[in-house]
Amino acid sequence: MVFEDLGESKVDISRSKIKGFPEIIYGEYKTAEQIKNILEVLAEHDGKALATRVSYEKWKYIKKYFPQFQYHESAQMITFEDKPSNKLPGKVLIISAGTSDFPVSEEAKVTAKWMGCKVETIYDVGVAGISRLLSYLNKIREANIIIVVAGMEGALPSVVSGLVNTPLIAVPTSVGYGANQGGMTTMHAMLTSCSSGLSVVNIDNGFGAAYQAALFLNQFKEMTKDE
Amino acid sequence: MVFEDLGESKVDISRSKIKGFPEIIYGEYKTAEQIKNILEVLAEHDGKALATRVSYEKWKYIKKYFPQFQYHESAQMITFEDKPSNKLPGKVLIISAGTSDFPVSEEAKVTAKWMGCKVETIYDVGVAGISRLLSYLNKIREANIIIVVAGMEGALPSVVSGLVNTPLIAVPTSVGYGANQGGMTTMHAMLTSCSSGLSVVNIDNGFGAAYQAALFLNQFKEMTKDE
Amino acid sequence: MVFEDLGESKVDISRSKIKGFPEIIYGEYKTAEQIKNILEVLAEHDGKALATRVSYEKWKYIKKYFPQFQYHESAQMITFEDKPSNKLPGKVLIISAGTSDFPVSEEAKVTAKWMGCKVETIYDVGVAGISRLLSYLNKIREANIIIVVAGMEGALPSVVSGLVNTPLIAVPTSVGYGANQGGMTTMHAMLTSCSSGLSVVNIDNGFGAAYQAALFLNQFKEMTKDE
Amino acid sequence: MVFEDLGESKVDISRSKIKGFPEIIYGEYKTAEQIKNILEVLAEHDGKALATRVSYEKWKYIKKYFPQFQYHESAQMITFEDKPSNKLPGKVLIISAGTSDFPVSEEAKVTAKWMGCKVETIYDVGVAGISRLLSYLNKIREANIIIVVAGMEGALPSVVSGLVNTPLIAVPTSVGYGANQGGMTTMHAMLTSCSSGLSVVNIDNGFGAAYQAALFLNQFKEMTKDE
Amino acid sequence: MVFEDLGESKVDISRSKIKGFPEIIYGEYKTAEQIKNILEVLAEHDGKALATRVSYEKWKYIKKYFPQFQYHESAQMITFEDKPSNKLPGKVLIISAGTSDFPVSEEAKVTAKWMGCKVETIYDVGVAGISRLLSYLNKIREANIIIVVAGMEGALPSVVSGLVNTPLIAVPTSVGYGANQGGMTTMHAMLTSCSSGLSVVNIDNGFGAAYQAALFLNQFKEMTKDE
Amino acid sequence: MVFEDLGESKVDISRSKIKGFPEIIYGEYKTAEQIKNILEVLAEHDGKALATRVSYEKWKYIKKYFPQFQYHESAQMITFEDKPSNKLPGKVLIISAGTSDFPVSEEAKVTAKWMGCKVETIYDVGVAGISRLLSYLNKIREANIIIVVAGMEGALPSVVSGLVNTPLIAVPTSVGYGANQGGMTTMHAMLTSCSSGLSVVNIDNGFGAAYQAALFLNQFKEMTKDE
Amino acid sequence: MVFEDLGESKVDISRSKIKGFPEIIYGEYKTAEQIKNILEVLAEHDGKALATRVSYEKWKYIKKYFPQFQYHESAQMITFEDKPSNKLPGKVLIISAGTSDFPVSEEAKVTAKWMGCKVETIYDVGVAGISRLLSYLNKIREANIIIVVAGMEGALPSVVSGLVNTPLIAVPTSVGYGANQGGMTTMHAMLTSCSSGLSVVNIDNGFGAAYQAALFLNQFKEMTKDE
Amino acid sequence: MVFEDLGESKVDISRSKIKGFPEIIYGEYKTAEQIKNILEVLAEHDGKALATRVSYEKWKYIKKYFPQFQYHESAQMITFEDKPSNKLPGKVLIISAGTSDFPVSEEAKVTAKWMGCKVETIYDVGVAGISRLLSYLNKIREANIIIVVAGMEGALPSVVSGLVNTPLIAVPTSVGYGANQGGMTTMHAMLTSCSSGLSVVNIDNGFGAAYQAALFLNQFKEMTKDE
Repeated sequence: MVFEDLGESKVDISRSKIKGFPEIIYGEYKTAEQIKNILEVLAEHDGKALATRVSYEKWKYIKKYFPQFQYHESAQMITFEDKPSNKLPGKVLIISAGTSDFPVSEEAKVTAKWMGCKVETIYDVGVAGISRLLSYLNKIREANIIIVVAGMEGALPSVVSGLVNTPLIAVPTSVGYGANQGGMTTMHAMLTSCSSGLSVVNIDNGFGAAYQAALFLNQFKEMTKDE
Repeated sequence: MVFEDLGESKVDISRSKIKGFPEIIYGEYKTAEQIKNILEVLAEHDGKALATRVSYEKWKYIKKYFPQFQYHESAQMITFEDKPSNKLPGKVLIISAGTSDFPVSEEAKVTAKWMGCKVETIYDVGVAGISRLLSYLNKIREANIIIVVAGMEGALPSVVSGLVNTPLIAVPTSVGYGANQGGMTTMHAMLTSCSSGLSVVNIDNGFGAAYQAALFLNQFKEMTKDE
Repeated sequence: MVFEDLGESKVDISRSKIKGFPEIIYGEYKTAEQIKNILEVLAEHDGKALATRVSYEKWKYIKKYFPQFQYHESAQMITFEDKPSNKLPGKVLIISAGTSDFPVSEEAKVTAKWMGCKVETIYDVGVAGISRLLSYLNKIREANIIIVVAGMEGALPSVVSGLVNTPLIAVPTSVGYGANQGGMTTMHAMLTSCSSGLSVVNIDNGFGAAYQAALFLNQFKEMTKDE
Repeated sequence: MVFEDLGESKVDISRSKIKGFPEIIYGEYKTAEQIKNILEVLAEHDGKALATRVSYEKWKYIKKYFPQFQYHESAQMITFEDKPSNKLPGKVLIISAGTSDFPVSEEAKVTAKWMGCKVETIYDVGVAGISRLLSYLNKIREANIIIVVAGMEGALPSVVSGLVNTPLIAVPTSVGYGANQGGMTTMHAMLTSCSSGLSVVNIDNGFGAAYQAALFLNQFKEMTKDE
Repeated sequence: MVFEDLGESKVDISRSKIKGFPEIIYGEYKTAEQIKNILEVLAEHDGKALATRVSYEKWKYIKKYFPQFQYHESAQMITFEDKPSNKLPGKVLIISAGTSDFPVSEEAKVTAKWMGCKVETIYDVGVAGISRLLSYLNKIREANIIIVVAGMEGALPSVVSGLVNTPLIAVPTSVGYGANQGGMTTMHAMLTSCSSGLSVVNIDNGFGAAYQAALFLNQFKEMTKDE
Repeated sequence: MVFEDLGESKVDISRSKIKGFPEIIYGEYKTAEQIKNILEVLAEHDGKALATRVSYEKWKYIKKYFPQFQYHESAQMITFEDKPSNKLPGKVLIISAGTSDFPVSEEAKVTAKWMGCKVETIYDVGVAGISRLLSYLNKIREANIIIVVAGMEGALPSVVSGLVNTPLIAVPTSVGYGANQGGMTTMHAMLTSCSSGLSVVNIDNGFGAAYQAALFLNQFKEMTKDE
Repeated sequence: MVFEDLGESKVDISRSKIKGFPEIIYGEYKTAEQIKNILEVLAEHDGKALATRVSYEKWKYIKKYFPQFQYHESAQMITFEDKPSNKLPGKVLIISAGTSDFPVSEEAKVTAKWMGCKVETIYDVGVAGISRLLSYLNKIREANIIIVVAGMEGALPSVVSGLVNTPLIAVPTSVGYGANQGGMTTMHAMLTSCSSGLSVVNIDNGFGAAYQAALFLNQFKEMTKDE
Repeated sequence: MVFEDLGESKVDISRSKIKGFPEIIYGEYKTAEQIKNILEVLAEHDGKALATRVSYEKWKYIKKYFPQFQYHESAQMITFEDKPSNKLPGKVLIISAGTSDFPVSEEAKVTAKWMGCKVETIYDVGVAGISRLLSYLNKIREANIIIVVAGMEGALPSVVSGLVNTPLIAVPTSVGYGANQGGMTTMHAMLTSCSSGLSVVNIDNGFGAAYQAALFLNQFKEMTKDE
C-alpha cells in the first residue's frame, strides 16, 4: 500500500520515493488535529515533515504533542527534520520588492532551506527606487535560480529577469488594494511580462516557488549522478 | 447659444473659451459624414480641429471635402490649424516600452503638438533591458511632464517615476495576450503602482494623456500671467 | 550608499534629492514596529516624514516613541516636519461628491499640505444635485489643479472637467455597494470618461492624487527657476 | 391554444391580451426565415408587429414577402401596423449623451412610437458640456417619463434624475473602449448611481426602455379607466 | 442658497421642490453623528426624512436626540413624518422570491409607504414552486406597478412580467453563494431577461425600486392635475 | 496498446469498453484532416463515430473520403453508425426556451439519438409566456431525464425542475447580449438555481448534456442486468 | 391550497407529491426562528425534513423545540425522519480530492442517506498522487452514480469520469486561495472538462449533487414500476 | 552603446552577453517591415535570431529579404542560425493534452531546439484517458525538465507533476469554450494546482516555457563550469 489511511486523510508515504521529498501538508483548511495526525505519520515514515499555512492557534495545539517540531511565525510554517537534510548544489536567491512582502519571502526561505538549498536574500528592493536593486547586481548574477516576491504592479521580476541569464520564478503577493484585486493584477502582470525566462506561481505561494527551485537544483544532482 | 445644433450632434462652440481648446471629435463610433459635419463647424468657428480614431476609410471620404486637413496614419487622427498654435512653455517627453506601442505613442505626440507643446520622444526602452532606459537619464530628467506608454505588465511608468521629480501620466496599451486581458491587466497594474506621482488614463488613450499634459503646461502659462 | 538597510526594509534616503520629497511609508501591511523604524530613519535624514494607512492601533504604539509626530485620524496618516515646508506656488482644489468620501478627501488634503501646497476644499457637491456644484463655479475656475474625489458612479470628475481648463486628477472611492464592486466600477467609469483632461489614480488613493498635484506645482517652480 | 406552433418557434398569440401589445421578435440570433414566419403569424393575428436587431441583410429577404412592412435602418428594426395605434397619454422624452448613441436612441424612439407614445428627443447633451443639457431644462421637466441613453462613464442619467421628479429609465450603450468593457462599466455605473428614481436596462437595450415607458403610460390609461 | 452647509455635508433643502420628496440619507458609510446632523436639517425644513442602511448601533445614538423618529429593524431604516404624507393614487405590489429576501422587501415597503403609496405584498413565491405564484394571479394583475425582489438565479421578474401588462422593477438580492457572486449573477440575469417591460436596480436596493415606483404614481397625479 | 498513435493524435480505442461508447471528436480546434484521420480509426474499430463542432467547410473536405457519414448542419455534427445502436431504456426530453436555442438543442438531440436514446422535444417555451410550458405538463412528467436548453437569464431549468421529480441537466446557451456576457450569466444563474435536482454543463454544450443523459439511461440497463 | 402561509414564508406542502421528497430548507440567510417554523410544518406534514447550512448557533436554538431532530456538525445540517426512508436501488459513490473537502462531502453523504440511497465514500484521493485513486478502481466501477468533490484545480472529476461508464456529478469546493477565486476557478475548470459524461453543481453544493443523484436512482424505481 | 537604434525599435545587442541568447522578437503587433529590420540587426550581430507569432502573410514579405531563414508554420515562428547552436546538457520533455494543443507545443519545441536543447515529445495524452499517459511513465521520468501543454480544465500538469521529481512548467492553452474563458480558467486552474513543483506561463506561451527550460539547462552548464 502506498498510503496510510486515516479516514479523512490518506497520507501518501510513497511520495519521498517519487519526489525525493515527503508529502507537504497544506494547513489552511485542515483542523489542528488533522494536521497533527498527518505530521505524525510523515515524521515516523520520513523523519522529515513540512506544513504550510498553520496559524499560531493551531500550532499551540500541535506543539503539545510534538514540542521538537519547529514553528516559523512570520512564515506560518511547521518544519521537522530528525537529521540534517542532504545539501543540494547551487544557490537560490530570494529577492523581494517591499517590506510588506516579508512573510511570503520567509515562506520561500524556510521551504528552500528545509529542502537542502543554500539560500540568500535581498529584501525591499522594489522598482520605485531602481538603484537599490542595481547595487546588488553581482550578487544577483551569482545565483543559480532566483525567486522574486512582489506585490502591487509586480514589475520586479521583469526587471530582474532582464539582468541575468538565470531562470526566475515570480511570486505575486496580495500586497496592495483597489485595482490590485487581492493580488490578481500582480499575478496577471507577471504572467504577461515582457521579459523571457520567468514563470509564475499562485498568489502568496512562496512555498511553491521554493519547492520548484529545489527540484531544479535536485535535478542538477541527478544529472551529475547520471554522468 | 453655446452650441450649434446638427440634429444628431450638438457642436460645443463655447469649448474654446472654457478649455482653451475646441471640442475634440472621438471618431470611432461616428460615421464619416458625422465627423465631416462636426469638423466643418469647428474649423469655421475655431480655425482648429482634432479628430481621433478615424480609420483610413473614413479619412478618404472626409479628404474629398477638406483636402487641407492633415491625416496621421499611424495615429489614426485628423488635425487642422489655419494658423500655427500658440506655443506652450516647457517640454513634454513621451517614453514608450516597445515597438508595438508606436501607434499609441504617436497619438499622444500628434495631440501634444497640435496643442502647442514642445515634444520629445524615447521609444522602445522597456524594462526587460533596463540599461536602454538608464542611458537616457539626463534627457528624462529635463522634461516637465512625462507620458509613459506601455503594454504587457505595464512596469515602465513605475520605474521612470522613481527616477524623476516630474509628474507622470501612464498610458496602458492593449499590446499583449492571454493574462493581459486586452490591456486591463496593464491598466490595473499601473493603477496599483508602488511609485508615487503617477496617474493613469484609459487603455490606448494616448490622446487623453497628451491633452492633460498640455492643460498642465497651459496652466503654467496662466499662472505666469496672473503674476 | 543610497539607502539605509534595516534588514526587512531598505530606507531610500536619496529620494529627497530625486523626488524633492522623502520616501513615503505605505503603512497598511507593515507592523507598527516596521513603520516606527522607517519613520525614525526618515525623520533623522530628511527632517520630514509621511506615513499613510496607519490605523489608530499602530499609532498608539508609535506615539510612545515619537510624541512630536502628528496623527490625522480621519485620514489615517502620520506626518512630521521639523521645520515648515517650502511653499509651492498655485492652488490645489479638492472637490468631493459626498459626505462618505470625507476620509479619502482628507488623505489628499493632509498630503498636499505636508508637501507645501495651498489647499482649498469643496465637499459634498455630487451630481445628484448639480446646482450645489454650479454655485461654486468661480472658486473652481481659480484653482491650478483640481482633485475630484467620488464614489458610486464616479460622474463628478467628468462634469467638473467640462467646466474648466484646469488639469484634473480623479480619485475613485470604495463608497457604494453591489454593482459598485468595491470601487472598481467607479474607477473604470472615471477612466472611460467622456471629458478630456483628466487622469485617474487607484481606489481610495487620496494620497497619490495629492502627491501628483504637488509634483505639478513643484514643476512650476522648477520651470520658473529655469528662466 | 394560446400559441401557434411553427416547430422551431411557438408564437404567443395571447400576448396582446395579457400585455396590451403582441409578442416582440428579438431578431439577432434568428434566421431571416424564422423572423419572416413569426412576423407572418403576428401580422395576421394582431395586425401589428415589431422585430428588433434585424440586419439589413435579413430585411432584404423579408421585404420580398412583406413589402408593406417598414424597415428602420439606424434602429435595425422592422415595424408593421395595419391601422394606427391607440395613442397613449403623456409624453416620453429620450435624451442621449453623444452622437454615437444615435442608433440605440432611435431603437427607443421607434419602439415608443409604435406603441402609441408621444415622443420627444434631445440628442448629444452629455455631461462633458453640462450647459447644453441645462439649456433644455424646461423641456426636460415637461416629460412624464424620461429615457436617458449614454455610453462611456454613463453619468448623464444621474445628472438628469437630480433635476426632475420624473421616473427615469437609463440605457447604457456599448460606446467606449478599454475600461468601458463593452458597456459593462457604463451599466454598472448607472446601477450604482447616487441619484434616486432611476432604473436600468441591458446594454444597448433601447427597445426595453421604451417598452417599459409605454407600459407606464398605458397603466395611466388603465388607472383612469378604473375611476 | 439651495443647501445648508454642515462642512462635511451640504444638505440639499431644495430637493423637495424638485423631486416632491426631500433628500434621502444613505447611511452606510456615514457616522451616526453625520446622519443625525443631516436628519436634523431635513426634519426641520421638510417635516419629513428617510435614512437607509442605518445599523441598530447607529440608531441607538440617534434615538437619544430624536426619540420621535421611527426605526425599522429588518429594513435598517429611520423614517420621520410630522404629519401624514399625501396619498398617491394606484397600488404598488411587492413580490419576493424567498424568505431570505425579507429585509430587502421590507426596505421597499417602508420606502413606498413613507412616500404615500398604497402597498401590498406577496412574499416567498419563487419559481421553484410556480403554483404558489400562480395562485395569486388576480392580485398580481390588479397592481399598477410591481416590484419583484429575488436572489439566486433571479428568475421571478421574468415570469411575473410575462403574466401582466404592468411595468415591473426588479430588485436583485445578495441571497445565494458561489456562482451567485454576491448577487452580481442575479442582477445580470435580470438585466438579460427574456421578458419585456422590466428594468433593474442595484443589488439589495429595495429603496431605489420603491422610490421609482412612487415617482411613477406621483407622475400619474401630475398628469391628472394637468388635465 | 489501448490507443492508436497518429502522431499529433492518439486515438483511444479502448474507450468503447470503458464508456460503452467510442471516443468523441471535439472538432473546433482540429483541422479537417485531423478530424478525418481520427474518424477513420474510430469507424474501423468501433463501427460508430461522432464529431462535434465541425463547420460545413470542414465537412466538405471529409465528405470526399466518407460519403456514407451523415452531417447535421444545424447541430454542426458528423455521425456514423454501421449498424443501428442498441436502444437504451426510458425517454429523454429536450426542452428549449427560445427559437434561437435551436442549434444547441439539435446538438443534444443528435447526440442522444446516436447513443440509442428515445428522444422527445418541446421547443420555444421560455418563461416569458409560462402558459406555453404549462400546457405540456403531462408530457414533461413522463420523461425519465430532462435536458433544458436556455439562454439569456436561464430561468427555465429552475421552473421545470420545480414541476417534476425527474433529474434535469441544464444547458446554458450564448444567446443574449450585454449583461449576458456570452452566456456566462446564464450559466452562473443556472448554477445558483433555487430549485433542487439540477446540474449544469458548459455554455452551448448540448452534446455534454445528452451524453450524460445517455449514461444515466445506460446505467439503468446495467442495473437491470445486475439483478 | 398547496402551501402553508407563515407570512414571511410559504411552505410548499405539495412538494412531496411532485418531487417525491418534501421541500428542503436552505438555512444560510434564514433566522433560527424562521428555520424552526418551516421545519415544524414539514415535520408535521411529511414526517421528514432536511435543512442545510444551519450553523451550530442556530441549531442550539432549534434543538430546544425539536430535540428529536438530528444535527450533523461537519455537514452543518439538520435531518428528521419519523420512520425510516424507503430505500432507493443502486449505489452512490462519493469521492473527494482532499482532507479539506470533508465538510462538503459529508453534506452530500447526509443528504443521500436521508433520501434513501446506499452510499459509499472514498476520501482524499486527489490527482497529485494518482496511484491512491487507481487502487480503488474496482470499487469506483461498481457505483451507479458518482459524486466527485474537489477544490483547487478541480481535476479529479475529469480523471474519474475517464475511468468509468457511470454518470458523474462534480462538486467544486472553495478550498484554495489566490487564483482559485473562492472556488470559481474550480467550478469553471470542471465545466470546461475534457471528459464526457459529467455535469456540475454550485460551489460547495454537496447537497445539490446528492439530491440529483437520488432523483436519478428514484427514477430507476419509477421506470421499473412502469414495466 | 548596448543597442542599435532603428527609431521605432531599439535592438538590444548586449542581450546575448547577459542572457546567453539574443533578444527574441515578439511579432504579433509588429509590422512585417519592423520584424524584418530587427531580424537583420540580430542576424548580423548574433548570427542567430528567433521571432514568434509571425503570420504566414508577414513571413511572405520577410522571406524575400532573407530566404535563408526558416519558417515554422504550425508554430508561427521564424528561426535563423548561421552555425549550429551549442548543445545544452539534459533533456526537455514536452507533453500535450490534446491534438488541438499542437501549435503551442510546436512553439515550445522549435524554441527549445533553437536554444540547443535535446527535446522529446508525447502528444495527446490528456486526463480523460489516463492510461495513455501512464503507458509513458518511464519516458516521463527520464526527463530533466518537463513542459506540459494543456487547454480546457488544465488538469494534466497536476497529474504529471505528481508522478515525477522533475520541475515542471505548465503552459495553458486557449483551447476550449464558454467557461474556459479563452484559457483564463485553464491558467488559473494550473496556478491553483494541488501538486507541488510546477509553475505557470501565460496562455499559449509555448515559447516562454521552453525559454525558461533552456535557461535551466544552461545554468547546469554554468554550474559545471564553476566546479
